[in-house]
Amino acid sequence: MSYHMTPDEFRESGKKMIDWIADYYEQIEKYPVFSQVQPGDIIKQLPEHAPEQGESMTDIMNDVNQIITPGITHWQSPNFFAYFQSNNSFPSILGDLLSSGLGVQGMLWATSPACTELETRVMDWMVDLMGLPQHFKSTETGGGVIQDTASSAVLAALLAARERKTNYHCNQTGDNSGLIAYISTQTHSSVEKGVKVIGLGTDRLRKIDVDATFAMEPHQLEEQIKRDLEAGLKPFFVCATIGTTSSNAVDPIEAIGEICKKYDIWLHVDAAMSGTAALLPEFRSHFNGLELADSYAFNPHKWMFTNFDCDCFWVADKAVLIKTLSILPEYLKNEATEKGAVIDYRDWHVQLGRRFRSLKLWFVLRHYGAEGLRYHILQHLEFARQFSTWVKASADFELLNEPPFNLVCFRHNAGNDFNKQLMDNINKSGKLFFSHTVLNNQLWLRMSIGQTQTELKHVEEAWSIICQQAKILTLPTDN
Amino acid sequence: MSYHMTPDEFRESGKKMIDWIADYYEQIEKYPVFSQVQPGDIIKQLPEHAPEQGESMTDIMNDVNQIITPGITHWQSPNFFAYFQSNNSFPSILGDLLSSGLGVQGMLWATSPACTELETRVMDWMVDLMGLPQHFKSTETGGGVIQDTASSAVLAALLAARERKTNYHCNQTGDNSGLIAYISTQTHSSVEKGVKVIGLGTDRLRKIDVDATFAMEPHQLEEQIKRDLEAGLKPFFVCATIGTTSSNAVDPIEAIGEICKKYDIWLHVDAAMSGTAALLPEFRSHFNGLELADSYAFNPHKWMFTNFDCDCFWVADKAVLIKTLSILPEYLKNEATEKGAVIDYRDWHVQLGRRFRSLKLWFVLRHYGAEGLRYHILQHLEFARQFSTWVKASADFELLNEPPFNLVCFRHNAGNDFNKQLMDNINKSGKLFFSHTVLNNQLWLRMSIGQTQTELKHVEEAWSIICQQAKILTLPTDN
Repeated sequence: MSYHMTPDEFRESGKKMIDWIADYYEQIEKYPVFSQVQPGDIIKQLPEHAPEQGESMTDIMNDVNQIITPGITHWQSPNFFAYFQSNNSFPSILGDLLSSGLGVQGMLWATSPACTELETRVMDWMVDLMGLPQHFKSTETGGGVIQDTASSAVLAALLAARERKTNYHCNQTGDNSGLIAYISTQTHSSVEKGVKVIGLGTDRLRKIDVDATFAMEPHQLEEQIKRDLEAGLKPFFVCATIGTTSSNAVDPIEAIGEICKKYDIWLHVDAAMSGTAALLPEFRSHFNGLELADSYAFNPHKWMFTNFDCDCFWVADKAVLIKTLSILPEYLKNEATEKGAVIDYRDWHVQLGRRFRSLKLWFVLRHYGAEGLRYHILQHLEFARQFSTWVKASADFELLNEPPFNLVCFRHNAGNDFNKQLMDNINKSGKLFFSHTVLNNQLWLRMSIGQTQTELKHVEEAWSIICQQAKILTLPTDN
Repeated sequence: MSYHMTPDEFRESGKKMIDWIADYYEQIEKYPVFSQVQPGDIIKQLPEHAPEQGESMTDIMNDVNQIITPGITHWQSPNFFAYFQSNNSFPSILGDLLSSGLGVQGMLWATSPACTELETRVMDWMVDLMGLPQHFKSTETGGGVIQDTASSAVLAALLAARERKTNYHCNQTGDNSGLIAYISTQTHSSVEKGVKVIGLGTDRLRKIDVDATFAMEPHQLEEQIKRDLEAGLKPFFVCATIGTTSSNAVDPIEAIGEICKKYDIWLHVDAAMSGTAALLPEFRSHFNGLELADSYAFNPHKWMFTNFDCDCFWVADKAVLIKTLSILPEYLKNEATEKGAVIDYRDWHVQLGRRFRSLKLWFVLRHYGAEGLRYHILQHLEFARQFSTWVKASADFELLNEPPFNLVCFRHNAGNDFNKQLMDNINKSGKLFFSHTVLNNQLWLRMSIGQTQTELKHVEEAWSIICQQAKILTLPTDN
């Protein structure tokens, strides 16, 4: 007796699922991009208790179609321009499927050597592919690891920085007295969360002012560091960003890096959203100074056709990271680890267990090749540039700035409430989905252009809808 | 022009991948369970640079077969008995495939309502299915969330406990002075790692002695708490375990829980490996006292046919967790969140981005039904009981204890070196894979019996191989 699905049943249901996914992508433009359901609409259709007897895959998939799909906000739609892109691809889905199928744990080299060694090699590939500093390679002092998210990457960086500055004593004594971290007012909220997590508290986080382009002011950073040093405090960590979430601002990495070297401060560079642009040599000037960084992260699961989760995180000195996070209980001891001949990635992040995530990245790199990736990324950058020219040519809208990458920030000249209403109306129509931010107390609309299936026609249509809806909203109402 | 794989190409390659996975499970017993490669064997077969031009899926899959597969330690083999099981199932693979295909982000309710609401409902289902305290339900004061791993779950618990005890001031000021955490000498290393991560330092972690069954001594716990209080310290966190990693020991949750209530200490209960046993009412006595816990975690990705990653984490009071971890930057603000009508799971863990992980758990629960899960889990428990009777009946081997769940700890009476050699010889043969631990300075062999495809015959064969190899190892060598 067995309740397990047999391999033959899996062949049948699995192939139907493959077709379901292919159909989904073929039909994705039929769905409203932003889910139209209200809070509780989904849960009330789900039974209150788990079934006592097993159910058929047909029944389950019927519920996927009838209950789940209406509650999906379609991130993979070519008309999704909100937040940040999270672009998927078929090769990535296949790599992830293989990972699910193999079901291995990559916590130690010994628990599946291929899981560790493929990851090491692919992370080294990325260094050359993107023109990153050579010392990030595993064959040098550094090395790369796939984290789940940029939040986890910055947490690992904060921890390594904390331990380096306290000579590895905070891990033992909890003494973090006087440690000070620095970000800009535009840095992603994950750093603030990380500063709380590691036990520093937000009082120890300095938010440095930004210039007119929303980039960190290095001069202000140095002044603040000096004030803190004079007060007997211990600056230990700076996070600089290449492509902020709000507006894609680029902090001056080189100037910030020199300050960090001067004052012996860990520099983490977060390029979660925009790092993919380094595939293109003509965009690498934004990354100047990265050789001064102690750690660096970018997310192929945002803008490199790799499905979530896949954050690439490198350190310049892997010994610090490992010394910070290593724990080796008896039941995990093994010959390969004890000889020091291998990488055990569980010492590179908080989690112990880990999935075979490099498979999907490897599938993507091999399917597209470097030239395929460059081609599509350049297209997205070009679409963003074109959108920005339409905004500039419009009498009613203004552009925040020339977009450094693929995020266009713009607004109608009728004020914050108007822009908010315009966005809400369009998003509720389901035709496209975009989002907003606030900069200098002004509400700005954000078009993040980079979904896998987004073509020029989708961007043109989006702009056309925005202009039409703005006109409708400008008309006087009847009463 | 496009380098993207088309839906039709995906249909073809996807169906081949489904067949590859079905074939893999049909043939899995042909492979040596423990990978036979040496450090560097895989990486040296992988090119030094990413390809410039794209490659075909056929080429990629050839490399999977020739390079990757030999470097796999086959966690899904029915002859895998090492560490802990990580049992996969076809329905779970299908649910995970759907999640990869949809490619949604579940950070906020609004970013895909179904992703949040299905998770909430499934986590509530689990409470009833396992006889957990009703107040863990989302409809009560508590609620559940899927974390990636038990390490992340205990980190969230430590953070919430730290903030509750410091009246949410540590998040702001970093003042963690005097906070003391308690575990047993047998608690999983993730708690020690978590105590470092949150900035307390291991000096502030008390390892309480265990009794003859390797369970925490509540009396010793209370004595230590009293000593710490007298010294002006602030006990804030206890982690108790139901089924330790080393030997499956069960800490007395009720007695520990009463002490925690008495001294206002957060009790986290970790049942990562063994929590699945609560599906069976006859095993629930091990869980007595769970109603006194502030948080609880178990891993369906270990022993409930759900592929990694899927850790179920509940709190008794969700308000504390959310207040600890919530951050709301402008670019994530939305109507549903502001009305407080919804759950935003990004406030329940460190990460911001999140995958649609409840799909695979939902697929598993619906495919097997409660009765199917109970049937197979009971079988594993019965296999472990049978294995233990063989050990007891053997003149050469001794049993550590009656296994509380599905982990059998045993050893040959010829000493530590002999047992280590015995295990290494067998593991290197590739016929089965098991692991060890050290308890009271003795090396004990561990058989964790719970892979999806493991049947009685595999357990019998394993015992037979162990006995044969022990005989061979006992024989005098020629010189």
